[in-house]
Amino acid sequence: MEQKVLSHIFEAKSVAVIGASRNPEKLGYKILKNILDAGYKGKVYPINPKADEILGLKAYPSISEVPGDVDLAVFVIPAKFVPSTLRECAKRNVKGAVIISGGFAEVGNIELENELKSIIKETNIRVIGPNCQGINNPHLGLNASWPVIKSAGPISIASQSGTFFAALQMWADEDKIGVSKCAAMGNKIDIDFDDLIEYYGEDENTKVIAVYMEGVRDGRRFVKIAREISKKKPIVVLKGGRTEIGAKAVASHTRSLAGRDEIFDAAFKQSGIIRVESLEELYDTIKAFSLLNLPKDNRVLIITSSGGSGIVSADEAELRGLSLPDIPEELKQSLKEKLPDYVILRNPLDLTGNAYADLYRDTLNIVIHNDTYSSFVVIFGDPIEGAADVINEMSKKTSKPILSVYLGGGEIQQIEIEKFRRLKLPVYPTPERAIKALSNLVRYSKYLKTIT
Amino acid sequence: MEQKVLSHIFEAKSVAVIGASRNPEKLGYKILKNILDAGYKGKVYPINPKADEILGLKAYPSISEVPGDVDLAVFVIPAKFVPSTLRECAKRNVKGAVIISGGFAEVGNIELENELKSIIKETNIRVIGPNCQGINNPHLGLNASWPVIKSAGPISIASQSGTFFAALQMWADEDKIGVSKCAAMGNKIDIDFDDLIEYYGEDENTKVIAVYMEGVRDGRRFVKIAREISKKKPIVVLKGGRTEIGAKAVASHTRSLAGRDEIFDAAFKQSGIIRVESLEELYDTIKAFSLLNLPKDNRVLIITSSGGSGIVSADEAELRGLSLPDIPEELKQSLKEKLPDYVILRNPLDLTGNAYADLYRDTLNIVIHNDTYSSFVVIFGDPIEGAADVINEMSKKTSKPILSVYLGGGEIQQIEIEKFRRLKLPVYPTPERAIKALSNLVRYSKYLKTIT
Repeated sequence: MEQKVLSHIFEAKSVAVIGASRNPEKLGYKILKNILDAGYKGKVYPINPKADEILGLKAYPSISEVPGDVDLAVFVIPAKFVPSTLRECAKRNVKGAVIISGGFAEVGNIELENELKSIIKETNIRVIGPNCQGINNPHLGLNASWPVIKSAGPISIASQSGTFFAALQMWADEDKIGVSKCAAMGNKIDIDFDDLIEYYGEDENTKVIAVYMEGVRDGRRFVKIAREISKKKPIVVLKGGRTEIGAKAVASHTRSLAGRDEIFDAAFKQSGIIRVESLEELYDTIKAFSLLNLPKDNRVLIITSSGGSGIVSADEAELRGLSLPDIPEELKQSLKEKLPDYVILRNPLDLTGNAYADLYRDTLNIVIHNDTYSSFVVIFGDPIEGAADVINEMSKKTSKPILSVYLGGGEIQQIEIEKFRRLKLPVYPTPERAIKALSNLVRYSKYLKTIT
Repeated sequence: MEQKVLSHIFEAKSVAVIGASRNPEKLGYKILKNILDAGYKGKVYPINPKADEILGLKAYPSISEVPGDVDLAVFVIPAKFVPSTLRECAKRNVKGAVIISGGFAEVGNIELENELKSIIKETNIRVIGPNCQGINNPHLGLNASWPVIKSAGPISIASQSGTFFAALQMWADEDKIGVSKCAAMGNKIDIDFDDLIEYYGEDENTKVIAVYMEGVRDGRRFVKIAREISKKKPIVVLKGGRTEIGAKAVASHTRSLAGRDEIFDAAFKQSGIIRVESLEELYDTIKAFSLLNLPKDNRVLIITSSGGSGIVSADEAELRGLSLPDIPEELKQSLKEKLPDYVILRNPLDLTGNAYADLYRDTLNIVIHNDTYSSFVVIFGDPIEGAADVINEMSKKTSKPILSVYLGGGEIQQIEIEKFRRLKLPVYPTPERAIKALSNLVRYSKYLKTIT
C-alpha cells in the first residue's frame, strides 16, 4: 500500500505545479523550470489562476480544471491556501502531494498544520512536507526541488534537512554516481522515514539508502521496517541532535523529539543501520556502498606509494576495527620477483615514491586473489599516471572491494580523479576517509552475517 | 646558530643542483626546471659533468668549479655518489644540502647513511634528508621539490611524508592561502623537527607551523623548543603511528621509534602543541590559524540558513568543548526588529531556507560586538549570493574569528567559494569541519592563557 502511494509520487506520470509562476524570481517558477530542465517526460500542468501559459505550457486556474489524471501535486503557494487546495486535490483523486510551501508548525502555525493532518486522515492523499525542499527522481527527470540534479544512480536519500538533501546529491553528481529517489522531508506530517525506507527498499534502482534524521514519529514501526530492509540494502544514518545542545536545536528545527541518544543508538544497532558521525562520513560511506561489493570480513591490505599515508591508514584502520594481516610467505616470494629490492614486504605495503602504475598492477595481480585479504585500500600519493586504469582492470578481476586514495599528485591528480569517477571507481582525497568508508562496509557485512 | 644555517638553506642566495639533467624524464631535470619555473631570483648552478648547458644555464662538471659562492646544494644523484660530493660541498663552504636522493637506510644502506652522518659531524654542512621530497620557499621562488607551488603565504610545513608535504601545499594553494617554508624531511639524519620549528618560529612570514611527525631524535630538545615557539605561534601536529599497527609501519617507513603514544601525547600537551587526528583536520586547522585571529574563549554563535547544519554543528561543538550561549535579551530585542517573525531566536540561530545575504548582514551587525560571543560559525546552506561579501565586511569590523561553511548551494556555490578564497576568508565544505577547526583555535587560545 505504502509503496504504491510512494511510487505515485516518485514515479508520477503527471505532475501539477500548484503556484507555478511566470516570475523568474519566484520559487513557483524555479520548480516548474527545474522539472522541465531535468527532462521530465510525463504530463506537467502549471496551476495559476492568473496565467494562461507558463514556460510554454498551458496553465490552469485550478487543479479541478486540469483535463487528465494527476498523480502528484507540488505545492508552492502561501501556507494559508494549502489546506483548501489539498482538499481539492484529494477530490480530484490526486495521489500524492509534495508541499514545499513553508509557514506551518515551524513558524508556530500549529493549527494550519493540524488542518493538513485532518485532510490526510479524511482522504486518501499522502503528503511529503510541508516546509520541505521537495523530491527528485533523475531516473525520470522528476526534479521537483532545487538544485537540478540529473545524474541517475543508486543512492536514495531521506533527509530532514533540505541542505543535506541538496549537498549529498551534488556530491554524488560530481562523483558521477548519481541518485535514485531523494526526498527532503520538512515537517513530515505524513510520510516518514519508515515509509521512505520501505519504498526505497523495494525500488530496484536503489542500492543504498542515505538518511539524515532528527527524529521519528513511530519508533517501533521504524525499527521493524529498517530491520527488514537492511537485510537487503544498507541504510546509512546520520542522526542530528545526539548531544544535549544538538537535541535542543532539533526541537526548534523540525520539532522532532530527539530523545535520548542511547535509545536511538540501540534502535539503529537492532535494525542493522550503519550509523555515521558526520555529513562527510555519510557521503563517503554511501559512495563506497554505491560502487563496491561488500568485503567478506575486516582483513585489508593497504598498498601505497606514500609511507606517511600508509601509516595514518594503519592508525585509522586499527581504531575502526579493521585487521591488517601480514603478507603470507607464498605471496612474498612472488612479490620479491616483481618488486624492487628496497620494497619492504609488510602491510601497509609501501611501494615508495618511485612507484608507477605498472608496479601497482604487478602487485595487485599477485595479491588480489589471495584469501588473506578481503579488501584493498590503494593509495596513490604521487603524480602516478594510469592509476585509474590499473584499478579499473583489477576491479574487473575481483569482486573484493578496492578503495583508492589519490593525493599530493599535482596536475595529473585532477585528470586521474576524473578518470576514476568516469570508471565508477571510488576515490578519496585522504587516507583516513577511505578507511572510514571501508570500515562501514565491513560493519554492514558483519551485521548481515549475524542475521543469517 | 641553527636559524642562520636554516636561513642559508631556505633563503639561499645561490643554489647548485647536483645531478641536474637535460633529460625531461629525470628528477634532476624536474628539480632544476621547478626552481626556474617558480621564479627563483638567486644564482642557479646546474652540476653535471656531461653537459655544458641545461635549460639555458651554464652547467659545471663539479661543485668545485662553480665560480661564485653557493649557499645550498640540492642533491639528485645516485646514493653512492652522495658522500664524496657532500664532502666536496663542505670543502667549497656550501652551507646546506637538501638530499633528495634515496637509497640510504630506508633500503637498508645503513653504512652509506652513517657515512653522511660522519661528514656532517666533521664539517659545518647541514643536511635536510636524504630520501626526501625537498624544500619550498615560494616567497623566494625556491621550489627545490615537486609539484611547483608558487603561492606565498603564512603556513610553514615540516613533514616526514613527502606526499603530505605536497598535499598540504596544494590545498593551501587552491585556497589561495599559500605557504612560507616547507620541508619534506625524509630520513632526517641531521635537521630535525626541533631545528625547523625553531627556524619557522623566527621566520616573520610564518604564522602557523604544520607538522606531520613519525618520531623525533631528541625528545627533550623538541619539547624545549616547541614550548618556546608555541608561545608565539601555533604548532599543529599530526602524529603517525599512534596505534600498534601504525607504530610498526613507522618503523619501516622512516625507522623512527614511534614510542608509546601516551608519551607523545603528554609531550605535545606540555609543549602547547595542538594535536590533530587526521590529515584533513591538520589542513582545516592550519587554514583557520592562517586566516583568523584567536578567539578569546570557547563561546560561539552559530548562524545558519540550514537547520540540519545548525544541529550537527551544535553536536560537534558540544563534543569538542565549545559553548553555545543563548542569545541575551538585549540582542533578542534588536534581532526581532530586523528578522522575520518565524526566526526563532536561539543558538544555533536558524535564519531558515528563506535567508539571503542581507539577513545575514543585519544579524551579524547586531551580534558581532556583543560580549556574549567570541567567535562565529556562519553557515550558508543554500545558494546565497553575496555570502562572501557579507563575511568580508564583518571581518573588517571585528577581530573575532568568523568561520564560514558553504554547502548545498548549486551553481552559485563555486562562485561564492572562489570569492571567499580571494578575500582570504576561511570557508569549509561541511559544518563539522568548521567546528573542529574552531575548536583547535580555542584550544590554543586556552593554552596561551595558562602560560601567562
